Amino acid sequence: MAIFLAFRRLSSGGSTTSLVADSLRFASCWRTFSTSFREEKDTFGPILVPSDKLWGAQTQRSLQNFDIGGDRERMPEPIIRAFGVLKKCVAKVNMDYGLDPSIGKAVMHAAQDVAEGKLNDHFPLVVWQTGSGTQSNMNANEVIANRAAEILGHKRGEKFVHPNDHVNRSQSSNDTFPTVMHIAAAMEVNARLVPNLKQLHTSLHSKSVEFKDIIKIGRTHTQDATPLTLGQEFSGYATQVKYGIDRVICTLPRMYQLAQGGTAVGTGLNTKKGFDVKIAAAIAEETKLPFVTAENKFEALAAHDAFIETSGALNTIAVSLMKIANDIRLLGSGPRCGLGELILPENEPGSSIMPGKVNPTQCEALTMVCAQVMGNHVAMTVGGSNGHFELNVFKPMIASCLLHSLRLLGDASASLEKNCVRGIQANRERISKLLHESLMLVTSLNPKIGYDNAAAVAKKAHKEGSTLKDAALNLGVLTSEEFDKLVMPEKMIGPSD
Amino acid sequence: MAIFLAFRRLSSGGSTTSLVADSLRFASCWRTFSTSFREEKDTFGPILVPSDKLWGAQTQRSLQNFDIGGDRERMPEPIIRAFGVLKKCVAKVNMDYGLDPSIGKAVMHAAQDVAEGKLNDHFPLVVWQTGSGTQSNMNANEVIANRAAEILGHKRGEKFVHPNDHVNRSQSSNDTFPTVMHIAAAMEVNARLVPNLKQLHTSLHSKSVEFKDIIKIGRTHTQDATPLTLGQEFSGYATQVKYGIDRVICTLPRMYQLAQGGTAVGTGLNTKKGFDVKIAAAIAEETKLPFVTAENKFEALAAHDAFIETSGALNTIAVSLMKIANDIRLLGSGPRCGLGELILPENEPGSSIMPGKVNPTQCEALTMVCAQVMGNHVAMTVGGSNGHFELNVFKPMIASCLLHSLRLLGDASASLEKNCVRGIQANRERISKLLHESLMLVTSLNPKIGYDNAAAVAKKAHKEGSTLKDAALNLGVLTSEEFDKLVMPEKMIGPSD
Amino acid sequence: MAIFLAFRRLSSGGSTTSLVADSLRFASCWRTFSTSFREEKDTFGPILVPSDKLWGAQTQRSLQNFDIGGDRERMPEPIIRAFGVLKKCVAKVNMDYGLDPSIGKAVMHAAQDVAEGKLNDHFPLVVWQTGSGTQSNMNANEVIANRAAEILGHKRGEKFVHPNDHVNRSQSSNDTFPTVMHIAAAMEVNARLVPNLKQLHTSLHSKSVEFKDIIKIGRTHTQDATPLTLGQEFSGYATQVKYGIDRVICTLPRMYQLAQGGTAVGTGLNTKKGFDVKIAAAIAEETKLPFVTAENKFEALAAHDAFIETSGALNTIAVSLMKIANDIRLLGSGPRCGLGELILPENEPGSSIMPGKVNPTQCEALTMVCAQVMGNHVAMTVGGSNGHFELNVFKPMIASCLLHSLRLLGDASASLEKNCVRGIQANRERISKLLHESLMLVTSLNPKIGYDNAAAVAKKAHKEGSTLKDAALNLGVLTSEEFDKLVMPEKMIGPSD
Amino acid sequence: MAIFLAFRRLSSGGSTTSLVADSLRFASCWRTFSTSFREEKDTFGPILVPSDKLWGAQTQRSLQNFDIGGDRERMPEPIIRAFGVLKKCVAKVNMDYGLDPSIGKAVMHAAQDVAEGKLNDHFPLVVWQTGSGTQSNMNANEVIANRAAEILGHKRGEKFVHPNDHVNRSQSSNDTFPTVMHIAAAMEVNARLVPNLKQLHTSLHSKSVEFKDIIKIGRTHTQDATPLTLGQEFSGYATQVKYGIDRVICTLPRMYQLAQGGTAVGTGLNTKKGFDVKIAAAIAEETKLPFVTAENKFEALAAHDAFIETSGALNTIAVSLMKIANDIRLLGSGPRCGLGELILPENEPGSSIMPGKVNPTQCEALTMVCAQVMGNHVAMTVGGSNGHFELNVFKPMIASCLLHSLRLLGDASASLEKNCVRGIQANRERISKLLHESLMLVTSLNPKIGYDNAAAVAKKAHKEGSTLKDAALNLGVLTSEEFDKLVMPEKMIGPSD
Repeated sequence: MAIFLAFRRLSSGGSTTSLVADSLRFASCWRTFSTSFREEKDTFGPILVPSDKLWGAQTQRSLQNFDIGGDRERMPEPIIRAFGVLKKCVAKVNMDYGLDPSIGKAVMHAAQDVAEGKLNDHFPLVVWQTGSGTQSNMNANEVIANRAAEILGHKRGEKFVHPNDHVNRSQSSNDTFPTVMHIAAAMEVNARLVPNLKQLHTSLHSKSVEFKDIIKIGRTHTQDATPLTLGQEFSGYATQVKYGIDRVICTLPRMYQLAQGGTAVGTGLNTKKGFDVKIAAAIAEETKLPFVTAENKFEALAAHDAFIETSGALNTIAVSLMKIANDIRLLGSGPRCGLGELILPENEPGSSIMPGKVNPTQCEALTMVCAQVMGNHVAMTVGGSNGHFELNVFKPMIASCLLHSLRLLGDASASLEKNCVRGIQANRERISKLLHESLMLVTSLNPKIGYDNAAAVAKKAHKEGSTLKDAALNLGVLTSEEFDKLVMPEKMIGPSD
Repeated sequence: MAIFLAFRRLSSGGSTTSLVADSLRFASCWRTFSTSFREEKDTFGPILVPSDKLWGAQTQRSLQNFDIGGDRERMPEPIIRAFGVLKKCVAKVNMDYGLDPSIGKAVMHAAQDVAEGKLNDHFPLVVWQTGSGTQSNMNANEVIANRAAEILGHKRGEKFVHPNDHVNRSQSSNDTFPTVMHIAAAMEVNARLVPNLKQLHTSLHSKSVEFKDIIKIGRTHTQDATPLTLGQEFSGYATQVKYGIDRVICTLPRMYQLAQGGTAVGTGLNTKKGFDVKIAAAIAEETKLPFVTAENKFEALAAHDAFIETSGALNTIAVSLMKIANDIRLLGSGPRCGLGELILPENEPGSSIMPGKVNPTQCEALTMVCAQVMGNHVAMTVGGSNGHFELNVFKPMIASCLLHSLRLLGDASASLEKNCVRGIQANRERISKLLHESLMLVTSLNPKIGYDNAAAVAKKAHKEGSTLKDAALNLGVLTSEEFDKLVMPEKMIGPSD
Repeated sequence: MAIFLAFRRLSSGGSTTSLVADSLRFASCWRTFSTSFREEKDTFGPILVPSDKLWGAQTQRSLQNFDIGGDRERMPEPIIRAFGVLKKCVAKVNMDYGLDPSIGKAVMHAAQDVAEGKLNDHFPLVVWQTGSGTQSNMNANEVIANRAAEILGHKRGEKFVHPNDHVNRSQSSNDTFPTVMHIAAAMEVNARLVPNLKQLHTSLHSKSVEFKDIIKIGRTHTQDATPLTLGQEFSGYATQVKYGIDRVICTLPRMYQLAQGGTAVGTGLNTKKGFDVKIAAAIAEETKLPFVTAENKFEALAAHDAFIETSGALNTIAVSLMKIANDIRLLGSGPRCGLGELILPENEPGSSIMPGKVNPTQCEALTMVCAQVMGNHVAMTVGGSNGHFELNVFKPMIASCLLHSLRLLGDASASLEKNCVRGIQANRERISKLLHESLMLVTSLNPKIGYDNAAAVAKKAHKEGSTLKDAALNLGVLTSEEFDKLVMPEKMIGPSD
Repeated sequence: MAIFLAFRRLSSGGSTTSLVADSLRFASCWRTFSTSFREEKDTFGPILVPSDKLWGAQTQRSLQNFDIGGDRERMPEPIIRAFGVLKKCVAKVNMDYGLDPSIGKAVMHAAQDVAEGKLNDHFPLVVWQTGSGTQSNMNANEVIANRAAEILGHKRGEKFVHPNDHVNRSQSSNDTFPTVMHIAAAMEVNARLVPNLKQLHTSLHSKSVEFKDIIKIGRTHTQDATPLTLGQEFSGYATQVKYGIDRVICTLPRMYQLAQGGTAVGTGLNTKKGFDVKIAAAIAEETKLPFVTAENKFEALAAHDAFIETSGALNTIAVSLMKIANDIRLLGSGPRCGLGELILPENEPGSSIMPGKVNPTQCEALTMVCAQVMGNHVAMTVGGSNGHFELNVFKPMIASCLLHSLRLLGDASASLEKNCVRGIQANRERISKLLHESLMLVTSLNPKIGYDNAAAVAKKAHKEGSTLKDAALNLGVLTSEEFDKLVMPEKMIGPSD
């Protein structure tokens, strides 16, 4: 009851009914209903905040004003952690520029906690907030300020350490948010996506070697074609993944450029000369990644082309993985009425009604991920193209989409590798049977008897259900010896000498 | 030489060099180089126009200012024809409001020529022009004015019939262009897409009936599953197409709303009350389609949600057709190493190197079309969302994309129907062989012996390469008679009594 | 330690190292590390499950095999709840077909708990699993079976109530999952999206009425154009939202069709005739929504065109809302250097560095949502088009995307309405100033002095920075009285009599 | 009549009615109705071909079987020309491997004609054909064979030079088509897109220098923000374009890899060792571009990831250009009721009803192009992800989309540069007026009086419509001298020393 009264007193308007509804709704944002509150304030005035939370007034306002999507839509954790990294580095550099060292160190300590994910529960804001990410920047400032104050023996909410004047010193949301976007994305690329793709590549390449002597029918237009080895087929997949790694790495030079130091509109107002370079260096040291200051801060705030570019690489990787996963499930189709050339690992019962059936579920999870990555790419493209003037205000959405795609692609690649590719076996018997029934070995007759005669042989065999050899002998275009010499699958899997 | 001199004299600026380049370039816009020119003028001053063309100064300026994409990118013909329809109807209505009848009739006559496609060569402008389509509206006004003047015995360029004061009377590009967009799209939907989809539906439905007794293995997750009839499988495709028709028709009520009468910003300034209703009625009569005046002209100019909506229906149809075409090509894969359940018509040699191979080319053409339709949908979505204030200025692109998608889907559906679906045959022998080899008939044992026992039977048969029956008898869960009574594919294709 | 040992013993393979890593990783799936486990089993054998959880073996396998995306990616709650609804209704209908009533009632009771969200913590699986949603169906079966068993006084894991034989009776994942997709989506459309859009429409319409007498400059091509009222401008927005509601409702007839009764491949094998109709009726009664059984179950399993279609409507709504939100923020731009025609509510401090600045944050959140909805639409389109044969295996992704879009659009529309539209005020002073400075009132001279003369007046005023009247008088095309009579903004906002 | 009789005789089936319809329809594919025909044949038998055309039987069949989209949809000219390049180079290399030199030289001659576009009229096939592009490959083979035969004094149709055995020797459509895709795309990137982007970059950079001393108000969230120079603003645009060039160039290493030598499935069957390297070298020499043979031919046939990757770069460029064009039109909005900071060149009359209005039409054309490029990207993504086994069969669509995007982006960038950017002028008076009215200069008070006091000053000025200085003095937070010293826009456009 006291809570509702407090709300009513502090609220700037609205009817009682909506107040109650509001407080109930906003309360629902925390899993466990807080039972006590403290007052925080900002330039808008005082507001109640749950006592057990470190956030301040601006975070609280955002919580109440953006009741969109629920808990699932919280700002992604890599962004929160990157704020920790950034605020720690800024505090360090700011001490060079006159920030009180005791406060600076406390801020660094608190920021480190954020970087390690220890304060995740104090970041309740959703992606769907102000398009500059200001509210999450303030969330970080408020949490770190309150935490730092506590470290120094002061109480939350008293602003002994000030979220703006100390933690956000020399910064604007407009340069911090793009900075944490770049930090978070670069870390995810390096720590999750690329290693998992490399593992997948290694695994596909191993299969390519393992299967190098298994000759099988090729298929083009989904129709029987000339033979190749199963190893060659897997080498195509391995190459796709290898190029995918190259593709995403090609985009990193622009991802390593940091907006920090641009402040509100890119000019660097309220910073000192050299601040931008120092902060980039500090972040590079902290993360062990080659971050540099963006050569043009106006571009760095007003556009997120670097994110769209990297997403373009992920989109291409999704295209590759979709192809690979489709092939694997089709080649593994069966057990008796499909192509049946691959035997996929059985990880779980496949059906609740059809006993004995095992499904290519890893391929399914991965192809769903690929579709989502393609969709996220479009969302980012739309957001990236809609910036106005000095600021793109689709930042949280763009960040969320890229991190989502990175996470899903990385995890699903690892899952495919571990739970499927690694365990794929060739069904040699089936592969051999199909190869030798095929009509398409006829192609090897082309150089000898010409295209038109070869076509006649194939058509005859097809029509009569006979073998190619019988057809060729009947048509009198070749002797038995010539046929056997020409039609050798093991000579059809590469150029001739 | 005379031409270049003339250009230099009339041009309002620029160096000689660029003038020469310009005239060469713009000349390249006509297949055959015009050898004589006349002077036309507008509020910008005089400009040379090829003597054998009916267009005027504004068209000529657009040609020179928007050298983008070349001839392939001309405004789609259905838009040109719809301008003919519109301008004819407006002239008719304008005569009720005081337009000189002799001029009005000549305009109607000239507009009819445009509606019939007789003057297509006089519409050289590309899609990539002003975003309101103003230049194509002026192209129509200029061509019709000059043609009408000639009908009345006057010369081109003299403006006896004035493109603005007569042909464009009571109109703005801002209401005419959306009006022709709606006319063109509604006509393409009704005259091309829906009839072709209906024909495809009829053909798929016929196959569904033809194949109603052919029991085949079902496939889920690309794996063998319980049986169904080939007719049932095709009934799914037929249903998808039927719903596709419903989907696009559902969107038409908003497509039948015409912007005409809104003039520049939607208010109807410079029209008389009732003009909008009369013009919509005239267009409805002319086209035999139930057009009405838009209930809100502000929406009709500033947004093209109706186009995005219809494109959404086409996108869904593309999704459906992609699935159907994929199934047909996979079920028709082979001839010996694929699923081989369908025999597709042979329309051409399939490969330049592999004789005797026939490919599912109609499916390939259609699935490429589906991908393009999905892409066009995104292009339109981006354009549709980027309107500002009283006018969306992505009109020509939005129009072009929808008409492109309509044409491609309509033509490719017809092509698939005629050159593929109609001639599909079932490979009954292959279908029967696969069905009886399958393990998945085991499902019919579930009600009798329970899920776990059924699973054990299937696993045993799979492991040993044996039949289900042998496995069941060996496990002692059923007698031979029980098995034969339970496992009857013809009893597995529907619910039991 | 006991845990790890247990794992090693039960695990079917793999090295010790990976086992430890696995158990650590899968443990991370639960917020609080479980300290005790029980054994559950399925056709694959026994597996350890946390004692405090109701799920069984198949859920546990999925948890371990699909470590993709983390907690944020759990199957959306509306799907879980819809499983509750479905399983309750199926149990009810199954009792008519012979299911033991005591078990049936317990299942209904347990399912009701699921429907009310009471057991959400027992649904840990992510979207990125098997593409048929089988594992979530089994999760529901296992949780409901264990809960029902407890209700009847039995222990979890003993299968007194069997997840397959009792809870999943007469069903397959292949028909239950599409059924819950349709239930969940239809409920979200009806309970969240449509009401929120209606409220937004009401609010925009109210503004349209409130502003009906405020005459302002129109803008086309972002350039000054003829006037309209601010009410007319808002009427366009209101119409867009109204049509958006129509659009999504138009798609519902196909969304109300349920796959239930199709079982594994659409034939209805292992159900009794009439089961499909009864179950749809029961769901309709339970949800108060007009669900019916799908007329073609093959389509209902193999395609999710209905989802793509509804997403197409959401995509169109996103296009509309993007336009509206863009207009609002541009019309509200300023405070001093923008258009400044609208005064938007101040909900929070806008910037951490620029005091006094208030940003259109609700518009920003909404436009980010719109971009995401457009992206989700593409993801679904890709997934929807990639079904094979009797089953589309992008089901969880398709479901997740549509529910995501529905939730975000619904919530963000409500947020915009409440926190922005409702409080928008017109800046009458600014609007009036701009209107009267404009040159575009010249259009009203057209009927009197002709297009060319009117153009000359406007050009002269523009060049000299003078008023239109001065220019007209200087050019001698009109008297002062004529000018004043013609140029009356209040006569320019509609057709003349 | 003779024609119809001929058709009926040769046709393999169908009713008379459809024959007549068919011949009429296929006749419509040529602008001018051919009056005589000759017989050509392939493995399918004889077929009539227009006498004045060089194509043969397979082209003719495709024309009749793929009546999709009409003339606008012909295979893009860069593909036709690249076929000329390729066939010339292959003939040259084949002579090293035993091709009769007299035939080889004639083929080279004929191919050169194709490369120069002289035989464009003999390439009537549309994009929507077989997904491998086989029919266009055969079109090239047939045209070159007939033309080469004529050069050698033989008649068309006699196959003195054989399309398969001579022109297509050592090739398959499956390796030639991807090869011409790469040649065409690489040439368009190098000859059109990059030079035009460089010119645009130069022009934007020049403006950045020209405007370097013009201080203006910044805008973030579309709201007034701290100042920057107009030159800085344009430097952001220039940087975006510069990075765009980098982005597309980054993708070329994979575009320079050629599939030629892979033949039907990637193995190189029917080629000699080293053929692939030689042919790539010949193409590199012919085109002066660094083409090499693809390191993995299986990837090169089965996937077109390189195209998707390059399209991803174009998508990012489209995002950049959309932003730039939007800014230019909004900054140029007016003339009196917009932002009015830029004066855009007047290229044409803007409106058919509003005299004196000049619209940002170049921005409109470009933004429409950007939307189309984004859409094409999705189409390619869908096509690229849908390859099966050894061959992706969305080749013509993927090729067409990328070439479309390249052409449109290149042309529209050039058009924007020439017809807009180059002529942009700053409206210095307006810029200065807005700057000095702004409240946001208050930010420069932050370091002196702190965030909260600065906010109070801004709020007071805003509320009272007063200047910042008056507000600051009234609040007593600063003296007049201090204010003047602090609030100096020229000191706000960069970091301090």
